[in-house]
Amino acid sequence: MVLETTYKLLAEAGLGGVSVDEVSRRSGVAKTTIYRHWRTRESLLVDACTQLAARLPVPATGSLRTDLEALASGAIRRLHQPSATAMPSIIDAAERDKELAKLHSQIHAQMCGAFFSVIEQARVRGELTRSQDSRELVASILGPILYRRFFSREQLDEAFAKKVVERALRKPD
Amino acid sequence: MVLETTYKLLAEAGLGGVSVDEVSRRSGVAKTTIYRHWRTRESLLVDACTQLAARLPVPATGSLRTDLEALASGAIRRLHQPSATAMPSIIDAAERDKELAKLHSQIHAQMCGAFFSVIEQARVRGELTRSQDSRELVASILGPILYRRFFSREQLDEAFAKKVVERALRKPD
Repeated sequence: MVLETTYKLLAEAGLGGVSVDEVSRRSGVAKTTIYRHWRTRESLLVDACTQLAARLPVPATGSLRTDLEALASGAIRRLHQPSATAMPSIIDAAERDKELAKLHSQIHAQMCGAFFSVIEQARVRGELTRSQDSRELVASILGPILYRRFFSREQLDEAFAKKVVERALRKPD
Repeated sequence: MVLETTYKLLAEAGLGGVSVDEVSRRSGVAKTTIYRHWRTRESLLVDACTQLAARLPVPATGSLRTDLEALASGAIRRLHQPSATAMPSIIDAAERDKELAKLHSQIHAQMCGAFFSVIEQARVRGELTRSQDSRELVASILGPILYRRFFSREQLDEAFAKKVVERALRKPD
């Protein structure tokens, strides 16, 4: 109940909208009880963000392109969920607060983990050479997707997921 | 003086750290005087963000690749300035507040404007065909750069600018 309320507040108002006072008021759970389970507001936030930070499932279609398309579409679906509206406030806090910087890098690691897995599988199959940098490949897929969601606020759908993956897999001239 | 203080507060503490009270306290300018010039906190913020929103200069080297490399490096330099730490809080506010959403899209438009100019020039020279989508090209350059600055927090330098542009200009297979 406490986590659910925290999560709802996060989605509605961002990190700044989550205080233990407000969580207590909305959930009807006493502050002392909340503090018994979570010693700090930050630890409560970290727990509430598990949904944002849940690892994307790893596809294994046998084709890097199809795997990446599935992951890119999955990331886009997640970015359309209400919880995604809390992401900029977490990024903002990460610029200043060490504990929240850890939360931020957890969310990012979970978002990326599945990408690195399918890239590693593709290397094993010989679809990718060692000279192709995994981090650059992930940046060339997640970058344009996060850009459209949070910066340009343009159309973000499955068609864009496919385009981004097609671009990312183009060979050097 | 008021704008300078607002800007410093923005860089230090993000949007949430900027209140007219605090600007008044730090700058020594009376709140009534501040409100005479800026009717709302938001209009003060918009003015203070001009530095973030300043248009990148448009290069004209005669080569799309070189122009884009210059712009990508310029964007990276700007993202290393203290003012860039305020960006996530502006994005966060834009998710909820209409006036700040306008500010956010101004900042974005200024960041992109120069990219669209050099792409347009390249079309005129015949370096790019009509079938190549400008917005997708910009997303494939600014996306990975903003991703590294705010999401993965990896190394972000001129070498990365060049790699991103090289990738972005690869031809379809």
